[in-house]
Amino acid sequence: MIIVPEKEIAGLISAEDSFDAVESVFAAMARGDAYNFPVIREAIGHADALYGFKSGFDRAGLVLGLKSGGYWPGNADKGLTNHQSTVVLFDADTGQAHALVGGNLLTALRTAAASAVSIKHLARKDAKVLGMVGAGHQSAFQMRAAVKQRDFEKVVGWNYHPEMLPRLAETAEELGLPFEAVSLEELGAQADVIVTITSSFEAQVMDAHIKPGTHLACMGTDTKGKQEVDPAILARARVFTDEVAQSVSIGEAQHAVAAGLVAEGDIGQIGAVIEGTVPGRQSAEEITLFDGTGVGLQDLAVAAKAVELAREKGVAVEVDF
Amino acid sequence: MIIVPEKEIAGLISAEDSFDAVESVFAAMARGDAYNFPVIREAIGHADALYGFKSGFDRAGLVLGLKSGGYWPGNADKGLTNHQSTVVLFDADTGQAHALVGGNLLTALRTAAASAVSIKHLARKDAKVLGMVGAGHQSAFQMRAAVKQRDFEKVVGWNYHPEMLPRLAETAEELGLPFEAVSLEELGAQADVIVTITSSFEAQVMDAHIKPGTHLACMGTDTKGKQEVDPAILARARVFTDEVAQSVSIGEAQHAVAAGLVAEGDIGQIGAVIEGTVPGRQSAEEITLFDGTGVGLQDLAVAAKAVELAREKGVAVEVDF
Repeated sequence: MIIVPEKEIAGLISAEDSFDAVESVFAAMARGDAYNFPVIREAIGHADALYGFKSGFDRAGLVLGLKSGGYWPGNADKGLTNHQSTVVLFDADTGQAHALVGGNLLTALRTAAASAVSIKHLARKDAKVLGMVGAGHQSAFQMRAAVKQRDFEKVVGWNYHPEMLPRLAETAEELGLPFEAVSLEELGAQADVIVTITSSFEAQVMDAHIKPGTHLACMGTDTKGKQEVDPAILARARVFTDEVAQSVSIGEAQHAVAAGLVAEGDIGQIGAVIEGTVPGRQSAEEITLFDGTGVGLQDLAVAAKAVELAREKGVAVEVDF
Repeated sequence: MIIVPEKEIAGLISAEDSFDAVESVFAAMARGDAYNFPVIREAIGHADALYGFKSGFDRAGLVLGLKSGGYWPGNADKGLTNHQSTVVLFDADTGQAHALVGGNLLTALRTAAASAVSIKHLARKDAKVLGMVGAGHQSAFQMRAAVKQRDFEKVVGWNYHPEMLPRLAETAEELGLPFEAVSLEELGAQADVIVTITSSFEAQVMDAHIKPGTHLACMGTDTKGKQEVDPAILARARVFTDEVAQSVSIGEAQHAVAAGLVAEGDIGQIGAVIEGTVPGRQSAEEITLFDGTGVGLQDLAVAAKAVELAREKGVAVEVDF
């Protein structure tokens, strides 16, 4: 079997590769060619860790496996990433272990790729201002992936802890774009595309902030109770997601559904837009919202790509297993 | 991280090691120090495969991880084992991947260890005749583990396909015990301990076959619909299991519970007997039955032992991950 260590991932797979892999598997999900298995998530009662698995099978690409890992809040003090992820792929024809792939960077790449896919298919073509809500580790990946999808001329950003805003400024500079730290009101007034990537448990972006024609990619809510935006935004937006069942239970839409503002049937699969079976943006005025909950198939798709590239570049460690 | 390839397992871990690991984790389960996470099991719609994960956490031994794998019915034609298993262990303190361990032989060893644990704690001390129902691949492991627990003087065996009986005869010979192929009636009349290890979907061993004082270890039923013994046996036996929730849903007890013969509260944890908080066998006449459904913690326990031994013996492959 093949081992692709975490330290090799950065040199192997680009944001573009990740985008293609995620777009392709979202489409396969909408066609019914790929599906996610139930998610396991457990507070293990040790080291305050949340641990679990996301898994699935892409019958089209013959990619089978799981991402295992979780959140260890004490890791930072040990010089380790709090989020630890490992992807294991299996041969769909025999069940034998096929590859073990470091999953930390891949998780950041696949999450950023998902919002970028939503921008490609849902944002206005003439979007000029990108609004970033959240300035944590993931925000840089999100910004890098987002700016490839439209001719953005500026980035505006907000973070609950303003002392973290330099990360957004530095990433924008890296991308050759001016950056402005703004209030949430100002962010909504300026931004044509808003990416939220926080660990918030209450709405930060309010309905009154949002102007017509905005596309929002809400990427932070992946657990019951988390929330980034006002449910009223979902009520007036066309809402899409990676997986509807997750969107209504652990995604951003959980609150709008609980409040009776949105029904499960109102939420579309982004994969159906990619496939062309459901229309994407239909007017310059409508608000679109992508509820990115994160599915195992995204992890498997980018890991399979990393394995392919590791073999091509000769950095895969082969172990007789 | 550490890789222990499948081919090394046979030279590393003995039936005794497996017994100790499984007995210990069953006890930890009963104390509430170890628990299994929900099982994922999916018919993936490719190669007729059944695929999934069993996982859990042993807080006492700090063993965290999963066994991934499944059943690929076409493997035999390719010269591969139909059941394919791989264990992945994680560092409970950091979430980092710790070890990848071939799980095929370990699965056989941990399953055999479970019935042996039940024999140790539930069978009559003076048991002399071991009855084997089933002569498939697993039967040899079961017999080898069982005979270590009592001074057996003879093995009697039955299999639905009599042409497979030579496997039982050969294993008994290897163990220095006489073997007799018998009818199920005769098996029940002679055997003091009966191990059932079949893939049957209907009762083979009937209540009328069973004499007082018998201990049965029913090891084959791990899925809804499978069945090895007459539910009436469970009604007159004291019934123990590895995990009660599995016993009543996918284990042998599912049928007795469905028929109203046994209630969930009637079924004891074998770990509680090991811990001494629930009495084991209380008379020479009573019938005891162990419903071995198979839990992820068994897999993790034997895999952790294999890793420890692989390090000691210098056969672990270390990979910078």
